[in-house]
Amino acid sequence: MIAHSLPSPTFGPAQQLHGATYVVDATFFSKELDQDNIVLDIGLAHEILKSVLDPLRYQNLDHLPQFEGKLTSTEFLAHYIHQQISAKVAETFSGSLKVTLGESHVAWAAYEGPVSA
Amino acid sequence: MIAHSLPSPTFGPAQQLHGATYVVDATFFSKELDQDNIVLDIGLAHEILKSVLDPLRYQNLDHLPQFEGKLTSTEFLAHYIHQQISAKVAETFSGSLKVTLGESHVAWAAYEGPVSA
Amino acid sequence: MIAHSLPSPTFGPAQQLHGATYVVDATFFSKELDQDNIVLDIGLAHEILKSVLDPLRYQNLDHLPQFEGKLTSTEFLAHYIHQQISAKVAETFSGSLKVTLGESHVAWAAYEGPVSA
Amino acid sequence: MIAHSLPSPTFGPAQQLHGATYVVDATFFSKELDQDNIVLDIGLAHEILKSVLDPLRYQNLDHLPQFEGKLTSTEFLAHYIHQQISAKVAETFSGSLKVTLGESHVAWAAYEGPVSA
Amino acid sequence: MIAHSLPSPTFGPAQQLHGATYVVDATFFSKELDQDNIVLDIGLAHEILKSVLDPLRYQNLDHLPQFEGKLTSTEFLAHYIHQQISAKVAETFSGSLKVTLGESHVAWAAYEGPVSA
Amino acid sequence: MIAHSLPSPTFGPAQQLHGATYVVDATFFSKELDQDNIVLDIGLAHEILKSVLDPLRYQNLDHLPQFEGKLTSTEFLAHYIHQQISAKVAETFSGSLKVTLGESHVAWAAYEGPVSA
Repeated sequence: MIAHSLPSPTFGPAQQLHGATYVVDATFFSKELDQDNIVLDIGLAHEILKSVLDPLRYQNLDHLPQFEGKLTSTEFLAHYIHQQISAKVAETFSGSLKVTLGESHVAWAAYEGPVSA
Repeated sequence: MIAHSLPSPTFGPAQQLHGATYVVDATFFSKELDQDNIVLDIGLAHEILKSVLDPLRYQNLDHLPQFEGKLTSTEFLAHYIHQQISAKVAETFSGSLKVTLGESHVAWAAYEGPVSA
Repeated sequence: MIAHSLPSPTFGPAQQLHGATYVVDATFFSKELDQDNIVLDIGLAHEILKSVLDPLRYQNLDHLPQFEGKLTSTEFLAHYIHQQISAKVAETFSGSLKVTLGESHVAWAAYEGPVSA
Repeated sequence: MIAHSLPSPTFGPAQQLHGATYVVDATFFSKELDQDNIVLDIGLAHEILKSVLDPLRYQNLDHLPQFEGKLTSTEFLAHYIHQQISAKVAETFSGSLKVTLGESHVAWAAYEGPVSA
Repeated sequence: MIAHSLPSPTFGPAQQLHGATYVVDATFFSKELDQDNIVLDIGLAHEILKSVLDPLRYQNLDHLPQFEGKLTSTEFLAHYIHQQISAKVAETFSGSLKVTLGESHVAWAAYEGPVSA
Repeated sequence: MIAHSLPSPTFGPAQQLHGATYVVDATFFSKELDQDNIVLDIGLAHEILKSVLDPLRYQNLDHLPQFEGKLTSTEFLAHYIHQQISAKVAETFSGSLKVTLGESHVAWAAYEGPVSA
């Protein structure tokens, strides 16, 4: 649950400050499994996702320095979260990552790309 | 997809005009089936639901006369849609109706009660 | 997955023989938990549900004796499956049962009532 | 909600005229975001999807000229809808499009490919 | 995500210590809306749910004093969480509450009853 | 519904014998449709999936010879089921296959690759 404004005419009433609830999914892709026959320790994945999302929860994104001057669209946020998770997971994982933000039952956006530090 | 404002401090940033996407479900309850072994003709139900929702689609609820001076919360809208469907279905159906508005993957509201004209 | 016809004008093209895929859910309601703190052994519930559904899978319901002269609407089938599960579970369970048949992402029917032998 | 027949022995009882309910999703893929940090204006996407689906709603596909002599399988319809959306979106969008038709909780088909006019 | 053991033969392999992931939903029922046309402030509901679930996250329930000598079945946990939320919400809400624990795509348990301190 | 143990410290309490419920989806990808405008006969797909899953249902995987000495993680099982379906479908289908195992509402694993005998 965050608040933000989207100051471009494209967004209609969403140009003003409003709230949004996102359900965030992270999917990790790998060509090979590790010695435990897994892509990634789901406990580690969970911890990293939590550490990336916690600083955003209940925040007004308009006031966070990393988003200054940015249009924090769902697509932009998916990319931002992808970068944050990538940086934290790059040491132990070298495949691809897809981050999906579900906005409502009928609208979502995602970013998919290789993990890099 | 509608736009509205919720002018009470309880709603935080949603006090300002903002957009919302609802997935609307209508569930009809009946103690008996009709002579066709159904609760209600699903084609008729679909038609009525469409006729009730069409005047709301893409509207700014703040500008619609029936919502003047009302806080158009999800709960309120569920009740409003219940009343509208009830009035249209009361001639041919005498059971109960539940109207559910899904706002996001994790938030919804519903109104359930007998159908009356 | 079953095939059936629904010979009443109400059903439009479904008056002719056609296929349908149902996802069947059974929900058991009880005022008290048993000595294992459960409503019903989920293994037993699963077994009973399977034993009730197996004789229907891939069948043309028009040819099954128990449905002769019946309109096998989704509502009717929910009631039929409710009766079948009830009879099998009545010895060990005395609460209520709801049987839901999901036809598609947007259409379903259910029957709910007390379990009786 | 459409009606159609699938005149090939492969389709068993679906060879005869029968009804089907599809939930249609369109997913747009792009390598870059536009100046508003979005893939596509969701309002425009919604409008185009509606304009493509409206002529099919409640129709008997067997009677529509564009489907004459065609087996209107779910796969075929996904491709057809992909072509229709592509033609309408090609001017303003140059990425890929995936069209998914959900038939029931357990069956769906999709077509994915580049958008072209 | 919790770990627990279910020491009764009914639970088969779940008699031993094992992990479980629950998705917890809380539904609040009220005959009347408040002056803001809502059942309950969703922010408050969220906060209370979080404060009740946080002490359970990643815990071995076998080691928590409140569960000593208890069979922590899904049904039991739904009731326990119901009691915890009830106590926290009773001052400001006087309707009913349903707590649902989703274990997997196909298994869930819930407890529903009036809120009391 | 299966039981298994995952004897590596990575799996925490799942190192011991425990139960798991998987919802298995198979998605078939093809560049071309066949003469019936379909990717694959869904009846055949269903039959093959059932024939691959039936020998696993309600089994303790630790006791099955094909899994001796293997860590039967969700990822491993997705790959195993992919191989089994591939072998059975390779004669009549030459595209790709994705096998997804849903463990809970929030955790799943998949294997995707070309079909080969």
